[in-house]
Amino acid sequence: MSTVRELALEARRAFYELAKLPRSTKDKALMEMADTIWREKDRLLEAALTDVKSAQAEVEAGRLTKPVLERLKLDEVKLKAIVDMVKSVAALDDPVGKTLYAVELDDGFELYKVTCPLGVIGVVFEARPDVLPQISSLCLKSGNAVILKGGREAANINRALYTVIKESTERVGIPRGWIQLLEAREEIMELLKQDDLVDLIVPRGSNEFVRFVQENTRIPVLGHSSGVCQIYVDKAADITKAVEVCFDAKVQYPAVCNAVECILVHKDVAHTFLPKLAEWFSKAGVEMRCCPRAKEALSGFNVRDATEEDWGREYLDLKVALRVVDSLEEAVDYINKYGSKHTDAIITEDRSAASRFIAGVDSSTVIHNASTRFSDGYRFGLGAEVGISTSKIHARGPVGLEGLVTYKYILLGDGQKVSTYIGANAKKFKHKRLDKTWTPSE
Amino acid sequence: MSTVRELALEARRAFYELAKLPRSTKDKALMEMADTIWREKDRLLEAALTDVKSAQAEVEAGRLTKPVLERLKLDEVKLKAIVDMVKSVAALDDPVGKTLYAVELDDGFELYKVTCPLGVIGVVFEARPDVLPQISSLCLKSGNAVILKGGREAANINRALYTVIKESTERVGIPRGWIQLLEAREEIMELLKQDDLVDLIVPRGSNEFVRFVQENTRIPVLGHSSGVCQIYVDKAADITKAVEVCFDAKVQYPAVCNAVECILVHKDVAHTFLPKLAEWFSKAGVEMRCCPRAKEALSGFNVRDATEEDWGREYLDLKVALRVVDSLEEAVDYINKYGSKHTDAIITEDRSAASRFIAGVDSSTVIHNASTRFSDGYRFGLGAEVGISTSKIHARGPVGLEGLVTYKYILLGDGQKVSTYIGANAKKFKHKRLDKTWTPSE
Repeated sequence: MSTVRELALEARRAFYELAKLPRSTKDKALMEMADTIWREKDRLLEAALTDVKSAQAEVEAGRLTKPVLERLKLDEVKLKAIVDMVKSVAALDDPVGKTLYAVELDDGFELYKVTCPLGVIGVVFEARPDVLPQISSLCLKSGNAVILKGGREAANINRALYTVIKESTERVGIPRGWIQLLEAREEIMELLKQDDLVDLIVPRGSNEFVRFVQENTRIPVLGHSSGVCQIYVDKAADITKAVEVCFDAKVQYPAVCNAVECILVHKDVAHTFLPKLAEWFSKAGVEMRCCPRAKEALSGFNVRDATEEDWGREYLDLKVALRVVDSLEEAVDYINKYGSKHTDAIITEDRSAASRFIAGVDSSTVIHNASTRFSDGYRFGLGAEVGISTSKIHARGPVGLEGLVTYKYILLGDGQKVSTYIGANAKKFKHKRLDKTWTPSE
Repeated sequence: MSTVRELALEARRAFYELAKLPRSTKDKALMEMADTIWREKDRLLEAALTDVKSAQAEVEAGRLTKPVLERLKLDEVKLKAIVDMVKSVAALDDPVGKTLYAVELDDGFELYKVTCPLGVIGVVFEARPDVLPQISSLCLKSGNAVILKGGREAANINRALYTVIKESTERVGIPRGWIQLLEAREEIMELLKQDDLVDLIVPRGSNEFVRFVQENTRIPVLGHSSGVCQIYVDKAADITKAVEVCFDAKVQYPAVCNAVECILVHKDVAHTFLPKLAEWFSKAGVEMRCCPRAKEALSGFNVRDATEEDWGREYLDLKVALRVVDSLEEAVDYINKYGSKHTDAIITEDRSAASRFIAGVDSSTVIHNASTRFSDGYRFGLGAEVGISTSKIHARGPVGLEGLVTYKYILLGDGQKVSTYIGANAKKFKHKRLDKTWTPSE
């Protein structure tokens, strides 16, 4: 078996070829990938079934939770959705080769800023059969080589998908070795050491794992270690709207990073809004942890006292913190202090208040009058999603294909020397913006 | 005296206010900064003179080199250039508040991707009087707070400039504490630890220092630790053009990161090109370190044998490595292996060869038929320059204002819930691109 270093070297070499391929070759390979996945469906469903059976034994032995088992299941409907997703990536615009900026430095001396792939991307992901094809197709479309490591519970389906994807794409002209699969947990640490070969690490999964990756590599990391989202209900909020949005943001799927964890309420509406919200939350079994003023507004309801640990906490569960604030500014300060710069929302009918909130909150996504749960690549119309980034550097928020590319400057001259533009008789630059795009010569 | 942590906290608080300011306030402050610098010129020139006198003593004692002393000097002409630079930053487009993308998720449910400042930026820079005003004005224009640490040899002028800039800008509405100055070397290590308060570190200065910073912080670092630039002279090169460009790239200013360090020559033109180049290089006192084939083409010239250490080496001096290659592809492989992904050039009259080189070389700037020395923010027309980045994440190549901003997603709804768009009767998203820009309400 090859070492991780050898696999990464092979991926790097493949990247140099892959970066040069035109859109047509990449899209053809994606269609071939989709068709082959469908053609090989019996083999793939069988591999997934093997994982499910092993997981069932683990669940019975109390070593695995039921939700993990549920996520491992694959049937024809889910496989068809995977095939459609791959085809939809083929249909997306090519993120590579886009001219971002063009300027004439001097007559016939043109500068272009053009998007290009990042290089080799390492992705460590949870045990689910749909992640490997999604990440692979996004990487292929954006011209990147990829090194994959999936959750061990999905080992069989991941190996089967990897084999199908590798064979089908390399058969139609994608460079050998562009996709690599790691299978042992120890190999993750080796992968994190390859900072001269790997350009980006995308860790998915638990917050602890993301933090571990961030602390153990010099490779840039795209992701988020926590999703502490807040909703601020302003004094000018439509109360019914506020209750419905807060309920959706907490209850619709509490185990995800864009679910709300703390609801801030302006003091003027605390007594009208909070009891209505608490009625809905009580029915849904949501545990409410309240500041003294919120508790006072909710006398008669079964609530708990919040402690200092509840502010900025990610429950990922049917629990929520409730806090009364004196002003919009106090809500913004709270969010900038306790939030995780992921997604925060304001509910208000006052558009000027919404603008102040949007300008003041230092988060990747800021929402006016809608659920924090919309913070998602698919819902944002980015096609598929690689992950959600709370970093401010490079891609931020839900990340689609554009987070997998960078750019290079291309300068086209005819023998220009810097010495011409320096000194007493220096020629002046023109710096005239050009309305042209970079086109390589055949 | 405040601790670094306290200064960083003050800068962070100032940033939250600064981020909300309109362009007019920032530009007014920049003009006030420029005018005040000019009004206080006697005081500033005197401060610079104090530094120059101390440095002269150090040079005489052999503890400082002459070029460092030269860079410390400040006169009215240079100060006027600083004033003009600050005014030119005021005239640049506001990089903040630009709509990068707008899409209608559903009727009246609009998503905007809008540029915003990064936050707090830490800059550690060399001993030169012009850097502090340049960095400060770029940070102010882009809505960022800044923590500055300059070279100790320029301590007096930096303190004087800092005071003038702080007072003049805070007087006209820029939040107190937006600019901070560190003066002790030990404080750099403290600064690198504030990863919850500082969003970006820009280290300028020696390669060793940049590497030290990269290895000692979790804050993202913008910069480059080395500039190993190559020029490939293709078989279809115009030989005169090739000689002139290579001479400019090596000799015009050898101590900088965009000077050429290794010239690769196609075997078919080695015997015509290399002797002509060597004639020019010999006259300029350039030491040539040759591969065996280059040495053979240069019999009669005084050259040295290259050793393995010469490939990928940054001389920053009148030294150059010369190497003969069999093909354009070999040159590309060499550059991707030994270069530092900074700036590389091809000299050829064959446009298709140039396109292959541009697509294959994995560097931040790739140049056809011009000197590598053009890789520079001013020459590229970016206004002023923060630094040159060899990272692929976030800003790459010469970095102007656009490297000091990120973006946030702004979603405007009217009570939308995710549950409406999920399940059996799920409503479909429209995802219609909008030709609109985000405008805050007053």
